[in-house]
Amino acid sequence: MTRRLRVVLTGFGSVGRSLVKVIVSKRDLLAMKYRLRVDVVAVVDSKGTALKTEGFSDYELMKLCELPRSGVRMFEPYALDYVDMNHVYDETQPDVHAELTPSNYASGEPGSSNVLNAVRQGIHVVLANKAPLALRFSDVMSLALVKGVAVKFRATVMGGTPLIDTLTSMRSYEIVRVEGILNATTNFVLTKMHEELTDFREALGRAQALGVAEVDPSLDVEGVDAAAKLVILSNVVGRPVTLDKVYRESILDMPISEVVKALNHGNVIKHIARLDLRDGQASVRVDALPKTDPLARVGGTLNGVRVRTDVGELMLIGKGGGGFETAHSVLDDLLSIALRGDVSAR
Amino acid sequence: MTRRLRVVLTGFGSVGRSLVKVIVSKRDLLAMKYRLRVDVVAVVDSKGTALKTEGFSDYELMKLCELPRSGVRMFEPYALDYVDMNHVYDETQPDVHAELTPSNYASGEPGSSNVLNAVRQGIHVVLANKAPLALRFSDVMSLALVKGVAVKFRATVMGGTPLIDTLTSMRSYEIVRVEGILNATTNFVLTKMHEELTDFREALGRAQALGVAEVDPSLDVEGVDAAAKLVILSNVVGRPVTLDKVYRESILDMPISEVVKALNHGNVIKHIARLDLRDGQASVRVDALPKTDPLARVGGTLNGVRVRTDVGELMLIGKGGGGFETAHSVLDDLLSIALRGDVSAR
Repeated sequence: MTRRLRVVLTGFGSVGRSLVKVIVSKRDLLAMKYRLRVDVVAVVDSKGTALKTEGFSDYELMKLCELPRSGVRMFEPYALDYVDMNHVYDETQPDVHAELTPSNYASGEPGSSNVLNAVRQGIHVVLANKAPLALRFSDVMSLALVKGVAVKFRATVMGGTPLIDTLTSMRSYEIVRVEGILNATTNFVLTKMHEELTDFREALGRAQALGVAEVDPSLDVEGVDAAAKLVILSNVVGRPVTLDKVYRESILDMPISEVVKALNHGNVIKHIARLDLRDGQASVRVDALPKTDPLARVGGTLNGVRVRTDVGELMLIGKGGGGFETAHSVLDDLLSIALRGDVSAR
Repeated sequence: MTRRLRVVLTGFGSVGRSLVKVIVSKRDLLAMKYRLRVDVVAVVDSKGTALKTEGFSDYELMKLCELPRSGVRMFEPYALDYVDMNHVYDETQPDVHAELTPSNYASGEPGSSNVLNAVRQGIHVVLANKAPLALRFSDVMSLALVKGVAVKFRATVMGGTPLIDTLTSMRSYEIVRVEGILNATTNFVLTKMHEELTDFREALGRAQALGVAEVDPSLDVEGVDAAAKLVILSNVVGRPVTLDKVYRESILDMPISEVVKALNHGNVIKHIARLDLRDGQASVRVDALPKTDPLARVGGTLNGVRVRTDVGELMLIGKGGGGFETAHSVLDDLLSIALRGDVSAR
């Protein structure tokens, strides 16, 4: 008997499209290994909705991915040219809402409203959008507890690398410090500056050309993205800090002379996010690390984290963001919800 | 309301004593964070039993740790000078059996009988002993499935570093290869040989003096320990290999000239355990890795593993064995059993 997981997606940019493609490409794996079928019953973007109660076919999912941005309202005959999540839920009766809209740290929207509304209606939630958790972690989690729904978010930190699960599973350890490279964009820029001695603007331009940096890179460059991840991690380990309390240093227009100076001293400059659980401080700093530090060797778009506990140290190195990597983390969360038995077989 | 987890320990050497000490030292943490009390109701070694139905006090647990090896039968008035697990279970009604006896790959005993007997009686099992899983993984797991009990074993591979949980949580990934340094003893010996150009016997003697190597180091040196870990990992990722099918190379009496030759070529010799999921091959080899390979930099008693998936690579570096580290992993498993609701509040 195959179990079905009915999923509504909000946000249909890089992560949403990657998720749809991964769901299609891993159909056989999921059926064989887990007797599970993931049905996408609605895709919602900023301008409209595509909705099919019995779930889109693989062909339809692939066609959806060919639409321009904000184009799902053109997906006839399943399209609506407006967004009304309650209508979507009524029509599709989903098990899970996947919140894949961009992280907006000013208002938190549309993520926060979407997530809280889904939880309130007893629908499980998986997030790739960091803002609802960075801004309203305890609101979301306490409501989820009351409603008995799961809220999963492993995609929000280190994308393809399961740091969050690792931290939550270390129950008998006292976690003393979590520190590392949590932003792939700034790490790529800094790596280019060190390896090729290009200046900041040129390295950033290269990152943008490769799609590693956004057109507006300020959230990454100024450390807001890494700070939001620290806020999420701080909540995971039970010592919450708020986003406005994270001390941040920007790498914007860092002169190449600083890189040269660091190299001459046997150091490497890294953008290091750090959470100190003993004093509750969180920061994103421009740090000069000795070349021999394992974090100094985490280059390019890799992420790397060192977890210090009362027992010792642990290092995790792997891919950070990227649509495809993030999509796998979202899918892992969907599977963990399906397999923990919260979803009845239909 | 505090939940109680009643635990029987078999094996009371380094890991067993460390576990008891960690349980005592983390009492407040467990009470505060999880409203949980871990009660040790029996400690069993090769010669006898100490048993107290209501659970030993912290003072009694500390006194138990002061007994000589195989000495629990002297722990009056709670001592029995024989071992009868069914009697222990009848008297103590435990939730969990923790199997901490040494790994014996010839017979699997006493671990295999202990584990199968516990599962048969509906008692959850946590293992640090690798042999029952390396030799009889599917027997243990299929019985556990029938009986509806949990069998947890994160301490068996990479001790303090949660590799097994990481692998099991990567459900949507195709895991292609797992490779790395899984044995702390041989890595310590090899690191000494490279850093100080000491010969094999001298490096091994140093390891023995520090307690990093056993008096009989053959299981480590000949790669049996690492091979057993590969067998466990292969079962975790759903592509089981058997212990006798793991190709093994020994580092016994490796001449220092090989180390010098490797260094002259910019390489480092490592004892690498490797599981290739595509062709189902498993091996423990003496490999020359380029100095720049992250695994080449995993030195001393650290363990390091690289997981290659269809999406990318992930590295985990952390402590391997060690009584204290292993005890934390055992305790994490106990907590995961207590917290997943298999144990009713008493």
